[in-house]
Amino acid sequence: MRRIDIDQIKQQIHVLLVSWGMTQERAQHTAEIMSDADLAGIDSHGISMIPGYFHLVESGELAVAATPEIIAETAATVVLDGGHALGHVTTAEAMKIAIDRTSESGLAAVAVRRSRHFGAAGFYAAMAAEAGLIGMVLSTTRTRAVTPTRGTRPLLGTNPLAFASPSSGDPFVLDMSTSTVAVNKLKVYEYEHRPLPDGWVVDGQGNDVTDSNWAYCAVRGEEDGGLTPLGRTESQSSHKGYGLGVMVQILAGALTGTAFGRSRSDAEDDGVGHFCLAISPEFFGDQRLFESSVSQILDTLRSEPSLNPDQPVLVAGDKERSLRAARRSEGVPLSQKLCVQIAEVCEKSGTQFLLT
Amino acid sequence: MRRIDIDQIKQQIHVLLVSWGMTQERAQHTAEIMSDADLAGIDSHGISMIPGYFHLVESGELAVAATPEIIAETAATVVLDGGHALGHVTTAEAMKIAIDRTSESGLAAVAVRRSRHFGAAGFYAAMAAEAGLIGMVLSTTRTRAVTPTRGTRPLLGTNPLAFASPSSGDPFVLDMSTSTVAVNKLKVYEYEHRPLPDGWVVDGQGNDVTDSNWAYCAVRGEEDGGLTPLGRTESQSSHKGYGLGVMVQILAGALTGTAFGRSRSDAEDDGVGHFCLAISPEFFGDQRLFESSVSQILDTLRSEPSLNPDQPVLVAGDKERSLRAARRSEGVPLSQKLCVQIAEVCEKSGTQFLLT
Repeated sequence: MRRIDIDQIKQQIHVLLVSWGMTQERAQHTAEIMSDADLAGIDSHGISMIPGYFHLVESGELAVAATPEIIAETAATVVLDGGHALGHVTTAEAMKIAIDRTSESGLAAVAVRRSRHFGAAGFYAAMAAEAGLIGMVLSTTRTRAVTPTRGTRPLLGTNPLAFASPSSGDPFVLDMSTSTVAVNKLKVYEYEHRPLPDGWVVDGQGNDVTDSNWAYCAVRGEEDGGLTPLGRTESQSSHKGYGLGVMVQILAGALTGTAFGRSRSDAEDDGVGHFCLAISPEFFGDQRLFESSVSQILDTLRSEPSLNPDQPVLVAGDKERSLRAARRSEGVPLSQKLCVQIAEVCEKSGTQFLLT
Repeated sequence: MRRIDIDQIKQQIHVLLVSWGMTQERAQHTAEIMSDADLAGIDSHGISMIPGYFHLVESGELAVAATPEIIAETAATVVLDGGHALGHVTTAEAMKIAIDRTSESGLAAVAVRRSRHFGAAGFYAAMAAEAGLIGMVLSTTRTRAVTPTRGTRPLLGTNPLAFASPSSGDPFVLDMSTSTVAVNKLKVYEYEHRPLPDGWVVDGQGNDVTDSNWAYCAVRGEEDGGLTPLGRTESQSSHKGYGLGVMVQILAGALTGTAFGRSRSDAEDDGVGHFCLAISPEFFGDQRLFESSVSQILDTLRSEPSLNPDQPVLVAGDKERSLRAARRSEGVPLSQKLCVQIAEVCEKSGTQFLLT
């Protein structure tokens, strides 16, 4: 592991995106969003996405220079066409629209169609919290990775759900895939040749798989089996994680006209869909009272006795907040393998490798 | 187990509620909602709630004759004060308001404060689906039952989340507590003196508890430990189920002015809060195309090969639908113990016991 300064990471992403044809301004914004994931310890959704994104550029599936366009709107609802651009700036714009429109209607939703991977969903939900609003962000994902409860094959995406709320103190920011773990978490284990914990991935007979290389093949549809839905097994209520995955597929997929299922081919690929919702607490009561109630919930939970005094009870967002502080000063750990891959992408893109 | 006709169950609930002081009309509506849970196989949320509700009547905590009142509203947002009435009719009215208001704004939300237990959340979400809309219903729960990830004591409620969507065929209806299982599911095991599966309840040291009697004490705060959040353990991402529980606490609790935490005493009890959201697919594209997309998702999942051919892959709502058909013709199985308790409540309420 090497420790790289966050500004170097941001700059590396920026120059690569520009070399692929993105405008300076959008590349800057995308680099900020992607590097924020690295800073927050969401290693699977930051600069480690670059080789995958480059693959989409090479195959022509990513419209690097496209800009999103509003194709339908009312006071509280908007449909945004992402034009197959990378999803980061598109979704930030979608959430900005939702935030702005709550001032009149109290709540607003933006559905995004024909988008691409947008990194960590929590970033966009947190935008709402920073504006004093409740935010919710859902997205379909392209890889058929999750085995439905009782099923034998990967079919659903990891379909993330993010939710954020302001408080009198730090915001609550939940960002979760609806599977036990996200695909990109397997990628990190595979990078590091580490065995997986039981219960994350099962084979076509429902048995646990710990070989991270085999598991990574399974969730890319090359083998039966796949990621378990949150809950892991039927007796531990995996139908709930599975059900949440379908909920996300309906709101971010069916509602945005995004295709689903085995029959989907590359030729008819219509990308991924997102759904952004913002709610203004002011419309339901006193804003300050709401924020102090949220703080009281979070602080009550944080002060609970823990099983292990070295591992206090946390609330969603705490871990990322403390990692942000540490990594800003100490740098972001990147594996040698990832650095080599980034260097290769830089060479093929005709741009400078900056992570030295 | 005895099999009782669903109309007898509905009538029994109806006469009991009237004997407690509820109006004929509201008692009829409440009995319909409660008995629908019995019909759907959600045994924990139907007539088995009667002894608990009677306890609240006796203690004066349930305002049986109260009717909900709108205390704040804009075009797309409403705050309803439940007046501590039983939550069933209140929440049906809240969802009806949300449904009606989507016709202008595309989406609408109703926050309900000072309510009481409302039975199965899915009923109200399904109302939206029946009207061609997407529905979401969240609720706080009164019992501190769920241990936060890393914690040793029950603190959060099981805070259910329901989501429903129309389709070209049957609707999708997800109704889940954010814990591995609901408190009332333990109650059913305790009634029947059955040991619990591992992973549902842990003690104050984080060890699995299978004694259903002990577990039922724990989730009522008489012992340390409690229900696990969905995900069960930290390595299986219980922080996600825990995070969803906090999300529900924020939307249905903080937003409705409902108190949270250990300090809450009976004297300052302000009941439970609900949050109902309705979204009109029409505002985001073609309604029929949306409904057929949802059907395609559901049918694709249903046709997946399953681990065991006798247990096909289902989607949320399927199990309840098939149980409804079976129980309508064969009756609803009720334990002898429950029938005895209902008979006692009837005697104390001065009304006839009808489950004979």
